[in-house]
Amino acid sequence: MNPDTSLSAELQARMRDVPDFPRPGIVFKDITPVLADPVLFPRLIQALAEPFRDQRITKVVGVEARGFILGAPVALALNAGFVPARKPGKLPSRTVTERYALEYGTDALEMHQDAVLRGERTLIVDDVLATGGTAEATAKLIAQVGGELVGFSFLIALGFLDGVKRLGAHHVHRLITL
Amino acid sequence: MNPDTSLSAELQARMRDVPDFPRPGIVFKDITPVLADPVLFPRLIQALAEPFRDQRITKVVGVEARGFILGAPVALALNAGFVPARKPGKLPSRTVTERYALEYGTDALEMHQDAVLRGERTLIVDDVLATGGTAEATAKLIAQVGGELVGFSFLIALGFLDGVKRLGAHHVHRLITL
Repeated sequence: MNPDTSLSAELQARMRDVPDFPRPGIVFKDITPVLADPVLFPRLIQALAEPFRDQRITKVVGVEARGFILGAPVALALNAGFVPARKPGKLPSRTVTERYALEYGTDALEMHQDAVLRGERTLIVDDVLATGGTAEATAKLIAQVGGELVGFSFLIALGFLDGVKRLGAHHVHRLITL
Repeated sequence: MNPDTSLSAELQARMRDVPDFPRPGIVFKDITPVLADPVLFPRLIQALAEPFRDQRITKVVGVEARGFILGAPVALALNAGFVPARKPGKLPSRTVTERYALEYGTDALEMHQDAVLRGERTLIVDDVLATGGTAEATAKLIAQVGGELVGFSFLIALGFLDGVKRLGAHHVHRLITL
């Protein structure tokens, strides 16, 4: 068994299934037991960063809020700066905004206008890729300011929701597909 | 000039003052330029962790949301697990809750019941210590589950608000006092 397969199995074994969260019929994958594990958490971060080590990434964008927990350490692992993509109204300086569709209605993400510079090689990190709505919105934020999106790194991809397809030609790295 | 003084000055120089955010009369200290700096960000994390290196910390609690960006890397720097303290309704499994006073009304923080074990040596990390309300609530979450609070680590302490005094006998490490 190669190390990646072994890590994926260990990560899956440590995640906790929470039925009916956040609403009836949904089984939520709780990653907090992985974060709380002082051996597994650093291995997770290294595995998220691994394919991008030679990609001259200078900015890592993490999506609020669990994407902050993974994205900030991945930025440090890649010797890159960290940029938060946040819910509306949270960032104090001038922002760019992207709206995206939810099951009912829409939501939005913001990023500081000067957080990613023109041409900067950028990686997006989040815990879960589902429909790809937030990931796509984050990619558009980077495009708005002229950054160069190199790829995405996710702990979990929910395969049946076709998020990977939606993110098109980009490198979509994921440790677990469910 | 010793290294700590030098780092504090560099951090202050890179923070951005945003007047009238989140409301008129408040000057917000925007730390995002520090996070985006691939040299300063790792130095910040090391400085937050430094006094606790020999303290046998096994859990680092970060307070939603900016505390996640600092707390997760500090946990990794201390070979500890990371635990998120979150706004109500965000954590999927069984939680403990603490309410705390705001200027108008109250808010609350939650932590998973099993996130910190009885007797575990725990460090709380956040970006700003103001009145100490959220820090104290986080300490009470840890007390509720029987954890041993070793101290706090903050990037910024707003000195005039007496947050340090409120946190009592604990070690309150802060890189900048304003």
